Amino acid sequence: MAAVRAVCVVGLGLIGGSVLRSAVAAGRPAWGAAASSIDVAAARSAGYPIEAGVDVALRRAAEEDALVVLAVPLPAVPQVLDAVTEHAPDCLLTDVVSVKAPVADAVRRLAPRARYVGGHPMAGAASSGWAASTAELFHGAAWVVDTEDGTDPDGWREVARLALDCGAHVVPAAAEEHDAAVARVSHLPHVLAAVLASVGAAGGPLALALAAGSFRDGTRVAGSRPELVRAMCEGNRDALLDALDEALGRLGAARGSLASTGSLGKTIEDGHQGRRELAESQTAARTPVRIDLSAPGAMEALRGLGARGGRVTALDAGCAIGEVG
Amino acid sequence: MAAVRAVCVVGLGLIGGSVLRSAVAAGRPAWGAAASSIDVAAARSAGYPIEAGVDVALRRAAEEDALVVLAVPLPAVPQVLDAVTEHAPDCLLTDVVSVKAPVADAVRRLAPRARYVGGHPMAGAASSGWAASTAELFHGAAWVVDTEDGTDPDGWREVARLALDCGAHVVPAAAEEHDAAVARVSHLPHVLAAVLASVGAAGGPLALALAAGSFRDGTRVAGSRPELVRAMCEGNRDALLDALDEALGRLGAARGSLASTGSLGKTIEDGHQGRRELAESQTAARTPVRIDLSAPGAMEALRGLGARGGRVTALDAGCAIGEVG
Repeated sequence: MAAVRAVCVVGLGLIGGSVLRSAVAAGRPAWGAAASSIDVAAARSAGYPIEAGVDVALRRAAEEDALVVLAVPLPAVPQVLDAVTEHAPDCLLTDVVSVKAPVADAVRRLAPRARYVGGHPMAGAASSGWAASTAELFHGAAWVVDTEDGTDPDGWREVARLALDCGAHVVPAAAEEHDAAVARVSHLPHVLAAVLASVGAAGGPLALALAAGSFRDGTRVAGSRPELVRAMCEGNRDALLDALDEALGRLGAARGSLASTGSLGKTIEDGHQGRRELAESQTAARTPVRIDLSAPGAMEALRGLGARGGRVTALDAGCAIGEVG
Repeated sequence: MAAVRAVCVVGLGLIGGSVLRSAVAAGRPAWGAAASSIDVAAARSAGYPIEAGVDVALRRAAEEDALVVLAVPLPAVPQVLDAVTEHAPDCLLTDVVSVKAPVADAVRRLAPRARYVGGHPMAGAASSGWAASTAELFHGAAWVVDTEDGTDPDGWREVARLALDCGAHVVPAAAEEHDAAVARVSHLPHVLAAVLASVGAAGGPLALALAAGSFRDGTRVAGSRPELVRAMCEGNRDALLDALDEALGRLGAARGSLASTGSLGKTIEDGHQGRRELAESQTAARTPVRIDLSAPGAMEALRGLGARGGRVTALDAGCAIGEVG
């Protein structure tokens, strides 16, 4: 292994392309590959090193002991994992897919020898494909790194290092914790935006002519590409069903209260409080934290940091340096 | 009546304050009054003519045959209507309340002699009170003017003139049509934002740490003052219940489809289509329209314009000049 581990990015869309750009900008040896000939051509003409195919890129990763980054939509993951098992079966492996437990399951099944530590950068954009990728996409963003009791600290550190090199901060969480959290704050928002857009448009031209900021904001993500939204939401089915049930319960309670007493007091007050907690979580004073990655219970300590809203912002001499509110 | 009709604004919060500022900026004789001593003091120190009380302002309106603008929250409307009946019973009266049928009912009951034509500017801001008011708040905004078969064309024109003087365009609609439309595109967004904020915050610090653009956009209006959101939503109860039932039906269908087949296809596709219709409604090519306000069926023609997503942008020689997509 080189002093700085190389990075092999499979998939060159918005996220994969931005990972490749960021890794190169951080001075890491890095190359990419993708099934999309459009993305491949665009990445090459932008001057990035793109291998002739995913198999070639993975064989090079095996030779150079690179960190392989799966940056394909969830439905394409099994096919790429088959290629990993064929060409780089023991590689250090991470991913940037928006759901973690299903990817971990697929890795156990299809690439069981890979040294896998999952990841998920919480960044996106209205556009997609290499053309939308930037080296700044992850600046200031949260990047979840899978943190299970059995996670190898060396692998964890390598994935965290990539996230930090991309300008993100690391939020440690177990796969199930991650999936439950993003169902609430990322996938449910897409379903509610779709429902709102449909109810608004069903009001016809008059309703749309009267739509102002609240409707525009509430429906913005309904403008995202449907196939990407579906892949993301449907891939997190179990956790999203729980979040949908909670939303249905709260919306039904609002309906019942408005019908029976004329009041939306509890609904509106609770929502206002939730929004205040969001604002507070982003502005809270933070105290520094240092976690020795080689100590017993390091993964549990990291998960505890994430559960309290904390983050890792640097790595130093075998320790994760972070802060918590 | 003067060549330019004077404007008397009752209530000097965000909307009323902005109406007074806009009317003065348009060169109209105008004065205000409010129950809030904070708003009154702020408006006076900004140099605007503020009467000693609502009763004084209304008596002056009766003397000068001014257009009286009710700019108070729905719960305060009955009290101001009592004052109208006492001090300016025959005045030309409009309002800027976010729901129209309940205000029209209250006027019929409490100020039956007033020449009332309701209105609703579709503009707002995160902040409230005179301090947040500006002369530009309504620039480019839709301003609904009540357009019933029995509406007096002269009164309609006076209210439309005020909206145009404030920089808005006029969307003609019957009160019930307005209330159904804003339940879909203005009140439902507030309820969904509150539900989303609650479900997100219930995920604890980890969920809030992972919240990105979709959650921030989807919960933005949950940051609005709860008492104002409640007054707006609860005041439109019947129409909002219909919109809530439609949202519950669509959300329940999404839940059922995800659970049974794993697909959110219809939900996400329908939402994407709705969002596209919103974008198209704002960019459509428009053809000019001219409606003679003194012709029989003028109100029906105006409502038809609004129902097709059209608007009135000027008044000229007894005609409404507009455009439709």
